[in-house]
Formats: sequence, C-alpha cells, structure tokens
Amino acid sequence: MPLDDFPIRCEVPVLWGDMDAFGHVNNTVFFKYFEVARIAYFDRIGYQALMADEGLGPILAETSCRFRRPLAHPDTVVVGARVSEVGEDRFTMQYRIWSVGQDTTAGIGEGLIVSYDYRGNKRVPLPASIRDAIAALEA
Amino acid sequence: MPLDDFPIRCEVPVLWGDMDAFGHVNNTVFFKYFEVARIAYFDRIGYQALMADEGLGPILAETSCRFRRPLAHPDTVVVGARVSEVGEDRFTMQYRIWSVGQDTTAGIGEGLIVSYDYRGNKRVPLPASIRDAIAALEA
Amino acid sequence: MPLDDFPIRCEVPVLWGDMDAFGHVNNTVFFKYFEVARIAYFDRIGYQALMADEGLGPILAETSCRFRRPLAHPDTVVVGARVSEVGEDRFTMQYRIWSVGQDTTAGIGEGLIVSYDYRGNKRVPLPASIRDAIAALEA
Amino acid sequence: MPLDDFPIRCEVPVLWGDMDAFGHVNNTVFFKYFEVARIAYFDRIGYQALMADEGLGPILAETSCRFRRPLAHPDTVVVGARVSEVGEDRFTMQYRIWSVGQDTTAGIGEGLIVSYDYRGNKRVPLPASIRDAIAALEA
Repeated sequence: MPLDDFPIRCEVPVLWGDMDAFGHVNNTVFFKYFEVARIAYFDRIGYQALMADEGLGPILAETSCRFRRPLAHPDTVVVGARVSEVGEDRFTMQYRIWSVGQDTTAGIGEGLIVSYDYRGNKRVPLPASIRDAIAALEA
Repeated sequence: MPLDDFPIRCEVPVLWGDMDAFGHVNNTVFFKYFEVARIAYFDRIGYQALMADEGLGPILAETSCRFRRPLAHPDTVVVGARVSEVGEDRFTMQYRIWSVGQDTTAGIGEGLIVSYDYRGNKRVPLPASIRDAIAALEA
Repeated sequence: MPLDDFPIRCEVPVLWGDMDAFGHVNNTVFFKYFEVARIAYFDRIGYQALMADEGLGPILAETSCRFRRPLAHPDTVVVGARVSEVGEDRFTMQYRIWSVGQDTTAGIGEGLIVSYDYRGNKRVPLPASIRDAIAALEA
Repeated sequence: MPLDDFPIRCEVPVLWGDMDAFGHVNNTVFFKYFEVARIAYFDRIGYQALMADEGLGPILAETSCRFRRPLAHPDTVVVGARVSEVGEDRFTMQYRIWSVGQDTTAGIGEGLIVSYDYRGNKRVPLPASIRDAIAALEA
C-alpha cells in the first residue's frame, strides 16, 4: 500500500478552489497538505497539548517540496508524515503526497522542526516526552 | 475621487495566485478584501485594542457581496469601508472594491457586526467608546 | 438526518490552517465551503461540461453568508447545496454548512447564479438542458 | 539598501487574514510571497507571453524556504527574486522576504524552474530569448 511506511496519513479532498490560473493545484497548497500531516503528527505525540500547557512547542524552521505531478480537482490526496532524524533540539520530518486519482506520488518534501520555549523565548532541548513519543510512533 | 465617501480606504495588489482556474480573482478573495478594510476600521476606532484589553470585541454575523466586474492580475484594488447604521448591540458596515486598472467598481458588499463580551460569552451593548469613535470617523 | 433536503452534500475536513488569528475558521473559508458544493452541483447537472463544450456557463453574481457557530479544527463539515428558485436567465442556490463535531448548523448562505455566454460575452437564457437537470435533481 | 542585489522587488502588504491560529503569517504565505516575485520576474523576461503565444513555459519543480523571523500584521514585505544559475533546460531562482516593520530578512528561499513545452508535453532547452533576457536583467 502506498504510504504504509508513514505512521501518520491524512486524507484531503482536492478542492476546485485550490487550483490556480494554470488549472493545477497551486504550489502553496502542497505546503498546506504538508501542514495537515504535520499538525496531525504533533497532535498524536502530544506536542500541541504540551505547547498549550507549558509553552514548549515546535517551530517550523525550514521546509521544501519537490513537485512530481500536477494535481487537479476532482481528486483526493493522502498525505503522509514521518520523522527521519532526531537531534538535540530539532527533528526532521518527511512528507509524501499521494494522488488517489493518479495512483502515484504527486509531491515529496521535508520540514525541519526546532524545539522552542515560547515563554522563555529561546531554543530548548527536545522535551523527553516528545522524544519518546516520536520513537514509539516511528518504531 | 472614487471611494472618497469611505473614511477607511486600503490599497491591495491583486496577486496572480488570487486567481482561480477560471482566470479571475476567486470570489472568496473579495471577502478577504472586505476583511482588510474591516480590520483597518476596527484598528482605527480602537476595537482591536478594546478586545485585547477587556475582551469586548466584534463578531462578524453576516456578510454579502455583489460581484460587478471580474478582477485579474495585474491590478491594484482600493477597498473602502464605512458604517451605515448603528444599533444597540450591532452595526452595519458597507464595503466597496475599486479596480484601479479598470477604473470602476468591481464589487460591493455589507457586513453585520455584533458586539460581544468574549469573557462573559454573551452579546453586549456596543461600548460607548466604540460608538463615539464610529460617529467621529463617519462625521 | 441533517441536510437530507439538500440533493448535493460534500464532506470537507476542517484544516488547522483554515483558522485565523482569532482561533476560528476564517469567514472567507465559509465561502470556500459554499464553492465546494456549488461546483459539485454544477458538475452533477452538466454545467461544467456545457461551459467547456459550448461556452455557456454560470457566473456567481451575488453571495451571502450568515455565520451561526464558529468552527475550529479538528472537525469535519458537510456542505449542502440546493436550488430554491429558477428564473429566465438565473437561479438562486442555497447552502448549509453542518458541523459534524458540534452536530449543528455552522452557517447558511445563498448564491445568485447568472447564465452567461462566454463566447458572445452576454447574458443568455438558462440552457434547457440545465433547467431540466436542475428540475430532475430537485424533484 | 536591502534587496538591492535583487533585480525584481515587489511590495506586498501583510494582511490580517494571512495569519494563522499561532498569530503569525502562515508558512504557506511565504511561498505565496515567493510566487509574487517569481511571476513578476517571468513577466519581465517575457516568459508569460511566450507561454501564451507558443506554449513554451516554466514549471516550478522544487522550492524551499528558511523561515528567519515570524511575520505579523500590520507590516509590509518586499520580496526579491534573482536567478543564480542557468542550466541547459532549467534555472535556479533565489528569493528574499524583507520585513519593512522589523527592518530585517524574514525568510529566504529558492526555486528550481524547468523549461517545458506545454504543447509537446516534454522538457525542452531554455528558449534563447529567455536565456538572453535573464542575462540582461541579472547583468
């Protein structure tokens, strides 16, 4: 099955209004798809809750996308997210956008997430609970 | 001069990415233009500050738009906002979108704004300072 | 069942990125939801195909929304569309946005659709095939 | 002056509605800013016209962004674009987003543009007129 090596998978319908004047889904929407999977990943590992409770949260520091196939409405995409590398105060996330209609990958990308203390306004080591939750989810 | 009967006027460039697959600025973007002028109006009368300080703020309860001309990139629009009617706990705002390139009105609309106490979670009479600021701005 | 008096119903996930700085789904996204159902309706009655083939298509001339409940991620909405009135060269569409998570209506709205000849650049009577397809779908 | 080493510079107001639930301009909007400068660059070198006339146009194959500072309304950004490398059938564009309010760089990025024959549906060498126009603009 496609994306079965991604622990987080989200289904999103391709909307007519996501297309631009070239008649294809605009490039910015690919990053919105990535965000859907990233937020779902953060929810799953308790990162959104930790940010609300203790002010320890993620910052998206870098992101990139390689566009492999143009997308168009009507279609549905499945967006996968996984963590490929964990550092002291950061981790790297990989994304894949699967077009159900075309039965192929439409885009792949990465994001660099940095651990931040929003109350102290400084980078901090990745909280242990987050590190453990990532390890468990990726196992 | 166009829009000189609107106390708030905001200039916004029409972006290529605001166009949809029909090659015109998407209808939802007209409401984004309205929002630009509405927020500028709220800033001017101190409504954003009052909401941050005391939790007394506006709710957009209804809005509408009549599309008069299609818009396309490249162009610049000027968006005007004015208050046409003030009630006990609400007021009506009128909007006009002027296309600089076409030298004509591209859209007109309205919004109904309701006064809300975000801490008490209930409708409240329009704060006197807001009522006075609207009267002064519209004079 | 909610929306069972709407012949067209579309399910759309509420994305985190659809929320604005107030923490609720932005007002412009309600109009994007309407568009999802409107385009699905047009597809069903063959209006998109007629536009591609003969240049006879719809123009959204007016639209409006009443916001009943704020929406937030995570949630799913179901958007319904139906035609309430058909005129010589126009028809009125009604929309309803149902929040699955809140089990209630989040917004209702209308759109005025005008029949247009994109090759002749003028309003034209509603094509008979479209009029018939609407009648059949609404029966 | 900031961005004076970018031949294309576009000014864009930061809209309130560009902010997400974290209260900062959403990451996807940085790519929309890049697009503003990219399209302006394409217009200047005649690439949009060549695509309309002969079907020879650009494809955005990859793009990336490093987020240096969060952006918020009210502010204005200036977005710069320049071409850093030209290959046989592709070129690399660099972008920089300058925050006027913060007087500093908010984001930097790149895009890989591939030359495409939209009628023949295949990659083609970069048209000579485009290659020359880039060289002249970057001189």
